[in-house]
Amino acid sequence: MQSSPINVAVVGLGNLGRAVCAQVDAQPDMRLAAIVSRRAQQIAASEVKVVSQDEAETLADIDLWCLCLGSATDIPELAPQFARLGNTVDTYDNHSNMVEHRQAMQQAASQSGHLAVIGSGWDPGLFSVQRTMHDALFVDPKVTTFWGPGVSQGHSDAVRRIAGVKRAVQYTLPNEDALQAVRNGEEPSANSHRRHVVVVAEPADRERIESEIRTMPAYFAGQDVEVEWVDEQTFDAEHTDMPHGGYVLASGELPESRASIEYQLTLGRNPDFTAAAQVAYGRAAVRLARAGEVGARTVLEVAPYLLSPTPLDELVSKYV
Amino acid sequence: MQSSPINVAVVGLGNLGRAVCAQVDAQPDMRLAAIVSRRAQQIAASEVKVVSQDEAETLADIDLWCLCLGSATDIPELAPQFARLGNTVDTYDNHSNMVEHRQAMQQAASQSGHLAVIGSGWDPGLFSVQRTMHDALFVDPKVTTFWGPGVSQGHSDAVRRIAGVKRAVQYTLPNEDALQAVRNGEEPSANSHRRHVVVVAEPADRERIESEIRTMPAYFAGQDVEVEWVDEQTFDAEHTDMPHGGYVLASGELPESRASIEYQLTLGRNPDFTAAAQVAYGRAAVRLARAGEVGARTVLEVAPYLLSPTPLDELVSKYV
Repeated sequence: MQSSPINVAVVGLGNLGRAVCAQVDAQPDMRLAAIVSRRAQQIAASEVKVVSQDEAETLADIDLWCLCLGSATDIPELAPQFARLGNTVDTYDNHSNMVEHRQAMQQAASQSGHLAVIGSGWDPGLFSVQRTMHDALFVDPKVTTFWGPGVSQGHSDAVRRIAGVKRAVQYTLPNEDALQAVRNGEEPSANSHRRHVVVVAEPADRERIESEIRTMPAYFAGQDVEVEWVDEQTFDAEHTDMPHGGYVLASGELPESRASIEYQLTLGRNPDFTAAAQVAYGRAAVRLARAGEVGARTVLEVAPYLLSPTPLDELVSKYV
Repeated sequence: MQSSPINVAVVGLGNLGRAVCAQVDAQPDMRLAAIVSRRAQQIAASEVKVVSQDEAETLADIDLWCLCLGSATDIPELAPQFARLGNTVDTYDNHSNMVEHRQAMQQAASQSGHLAVIGSGWDPGLFSVQRTMHDALFVDPKVTTFWGPGVSQGHSDAVRRIAGVKRAVQYTLPNEDALQAVRNGEEPSANSHRRHVVVVAEPADRERIESEIRTMPAYFAGQDVEVEWVDEQTFDAEHTDMPHGGYVLASGELPESRASIEYQLTLGRNPDFTAAAQVAYGRAAVRLARAGEVGARTVLEVAPYLLSPTPLDELVSKYV
């Protein structure tokens, strides 16, 4: 890209927002211009300008607003407001409301003459791209998604609420048998995932805690659950990262044969990779806007070369 | 797609051309309108109009020319001629001449006002898209490609030339140790692939044949070779398909963690899957042309939704 650097404002400073700041810093064609946060004081020492949400519209020359906000209430409420200020990229992840979110962003961005890329993480995001490719390659593809190994916040919180639990984390893992069944073109069994719970607790409490975990309705009862006891030191050393990942598997019949495609992500830290995808799709948002396009775009509407800082000619000679 | 069906002419009737004919027949939005072949008589019984290459320009109303021709000499010579007649899609696979091919097709398609998608199989093609995504996600990605398990025509032919060999096929397979090394973020060993040779021969000849295989310069000497003897019946039953596939593995450092992406294809019959990719990118060529675009496009310039016959709104609600 020979055009001017992309000035980025990061909105929200949770795990994702902090990861996006670091990822923007690592890009050859981007500059972290500002941070919009409720916690302005907390990071006032930073060299980057920090403003509150009310002050966001006073910022000049922002090419891209990276919206690092929660999908439950913040994005539906705030994303259209930012789309009125400039180009945006979000990681909205509520699959069942994606159509409504797209409509809201299409309206806001069309009216303001900006471009908004929505749902840009890895699921939705990179996994959505894979599923669409399968739809294009096979007449009636069988597509299955497995998530993990990765931390489930909801299940971890549920275990932490049990009396006597000092520390806990719950990893969701694909069930290997189910994964293999899908690889063989069969239906996965009912329990396609298993749950690995790592807990710190006094030995005297363990039998009761394990029983409470295994019988907890909706969260663990009837599922494939493994409970592991560790001491506090091991927990701090080995269980405070946020690993995640998953698989999209597809198989389909072609006129005379069968083919399968497997796409797997193994992520050391979920927010870092989500940030990498968001920043890449943010670059595409700015390039589409600079080419004169306006409105909302899903990841399905973004050509791959727009994601990379490498010029197209170089991508063709290196990767095609 | 609510627009009129895509009328397809398939150029060339080798393994790929025949697979493309079948794949086009299976598409809801395409119609096999004509076949261009040197072997016109041979398939004259078909209901589809068959013409020679000289007669191709007499065909009317062709929306897409699917070029199923060899990359060695046919595509460089003939593809620009077809780009002057209409929209084309090819599976040109000579990586080192892709830049020149792109220039030739850009010139031909721009002048004639058509659109040409080039290099649309799986490598180049789907693998190229993966590599470009890695380039976008990681600042300095480590990307490795493994091919196979799949039939190598060149190596199979070399074995067939040995005296006493009745039938033979050579499968190239990724070396599991090398694959695991790359998964662990290490460099692959020198022999990243191994060679599995399946041969039909009289018992009296086998020791000599195996020695000739293992010492054959350039093809097998110094490599990881396994020779398997089968009878003719087993060969015919199990070794006349054209399976192929491969892996693109990438890993990269993010600001605070590491992530890896693995993309794997397992193809029952190579020409069928190549045809599926070619037909999907052919659909995209027609849609881009109908939107007013002209010139050559690599797979990197094609947004995913353009590949699928499913309308965008439905793709968003099903897959994002």
